[in-house]
Amino acid sequence: MNLDRYLARRQQQVERFLERCVPPGSDTLTEAMRYSLLAGGKRIRPALAVAACETVGGDVVRVMPFACGIELIHTYSLIHDDLPAMDDDDLRRGRPTNHIVFGEAVAILAGDALLTEAFRIMGEAAARAGTRQASAIQALTEIAAAAGARGMVAGQVADMQAEHSAVDLPTVEMIHVRKTGALLRAAVRAGALLGGARAPALRRLTRYGEFIGLAFQVADDILDAEGTTATTGKRTGRDQARSKATFPAVLGLSAARQRAQDLLASAVRELQSFDHRAEPLRAIARFVVGRACPK
Amino acid sequence: MNLDRYLARRQQQVERFLERCVPPGSDTLTEAMRYSLLAGGKRIRPALAVAACETVGGDVVRVMPFACGIELIHTYSLIHDDLPAMDDDDLRRGRPTNHIVFGEAVAILAGDALLTEAFRIMGEAAARAGTRQASAIQALTEIAAAAGARGMVAGQVADMQAEHSAVDLPTVEMIHVRKTGALLRAAVRAGALLGGARAPALRRLTRYGEFIGLAFQVADDILDAEGTTATTGKRTGRDQARSKATFPAVLGLSAARQRAQDLLASAVRELQSFDHRAEPLRAIARFVVGRACPK
Repeated sequence: MNLDRYLARRQQQVERFLERCVPPGSDTLTEAMRYSLLAGGKRIRPALAVAACETVGGDVVRVMPFACGIELIHTYSLIHDDLPAMDDDDLRRGRPTNHIVFGEAVAILAGDALLTEAFRIMGEAAARAGTRQASAIQALTEIAAAAGARGMVAGQVADMQAEHSAVDLPTVEMIHVRKTGALLRAAVRAGALLGGARAPALRRLTRYGEFIGLAFQVADDILDAEGTTATTGKRTGRDQARSKATFPAVLGLSAARQRAQDLLASAVRELQSFDHRAEPLRAIARFVVGRACPK
Repeated sequence: MNLDRYLARRQQQVERFLERCVPPGSDTLTEAMRYSLLAGGKRIRPALAVAACETVGGDVVRVMPFACGIELIHTYSLIHDDLPAMDDDDLRRGRPTNHIVFGEAVAILAGDALLTEAFRIMGEAAARAGTRQASAIQALTEIAAAAGARGMVAGQVADMQAEHSAVDLPTVEMIHVRKTGALLRAAVRAGALLGGARAPALRRLTRYGEFIGLAFQVADDILDAEGTTATTGKRTGRDQARSKATFPAVLGLSAARQRAQDLLASAVRELQSFDHRAEPLRAIARFVVGRACPK
């Protein structure tokens, strides 16, 4: 199995499906939605959902609407995070942020529309899910819970409130489990559920998702602290400038890097009982941490 | 049948369910969500869903999560519409708007959370829907479509773009069908679907929903043009100040009022073949238009 080629092929499938989620149109709203959705992100969340589905021998076609629904939700959260009232960022994925190009009002609405369309797309898929209908509804509901008032949005509020105040490690973890971890975990679980995972496999994959969710945020924090705009495509050093609650801020860079490696090891350990079909999940875990901890 | 007493009882049920949708919490996000959700709106959308369900002999308990999910979506749209980058309103339902009380960032996030929680609540209900599962998924999906990039959000963008430009009646209708009509229509259809409506009944109720959706917006426009802040609980005359695309602006007040009456008559005509169980839908139609066209 050529893992790189495999992952590239999956990536292409995701891009094609995303393209169909918001088809081209001549109106400003469509243009603004596509501007941010099709800006060539890493597509970690869809990749996790697809790979989790394959790990348990599921059919990738079933999981694609959910994998991409999660990416629409992730994209809306980036657009809203970048707004002047929030993080006030002007650069994302190497390009001007949505509100810089389309104005604040359209950026807010483009985010709202992406979030809403995600549920339309997942709802339509659930309607066609046949014998997997119960799993499809569970996936949709878990994704909403992970993105909502006790998940991602709660994490964003806690993150804002922690700015410029002294925070400890448990607080940083609590913020990041919600802000980033919940949706990454939901991506893995959605893939596993739609792939037909039985309870023990689902439990192991859930723990994998939790470890990888936290590892992802530790790596992101490290990249913000020491990456450059050229390598990350966004302004770096912003966390420190705003005294954000980050892992490097409470642990120091070196211990944060060790933490990311430990989380990677824990994530991969959860995959021990799975066969070669878990290779993509192992590769994604290494990639997530490798970005911030080069060999 | 004492209609007033009946409607008041249904209203109470809706308020109780809404209260449970976002339970009290000590955090800012919960406070901001509840501030706008439990501000005592008219609850027209939940009322329509519940009444449509009863018209076809359905069980009201089944429809409540969808009726209230729609109200969460409606509430999020009001919070975002009122933002400084959008309509910049400081008063709603007789109280300061969400961003005046909680700040812009929290107001954006409270809206995001209400929209997301709506789908969590509807998803959980769909999971428990048993033999009505297909209808529940269809209702959720139609609500998402009505609220999304070809429905409410598209209407909001078109509405903004029409400000300060000459518009004709078809344009005003197109904007309002999307901005307000789509979600009201979805409320009626969700109620009918979950109530087990057969195709002919569903078709008639859908047309009722379309007429009432447009009538609602004509009435709202009239109230903005000639109501007072004391009667509407929000700043009035704002549409004219911004040269918004409204029915009174293109038709004049008197013809707009006639239009609302005609739409009311058309809506009620669609209910002819239903028995006394359609009384609440008839009463809601009269209420919607009566606000702006007193006898």
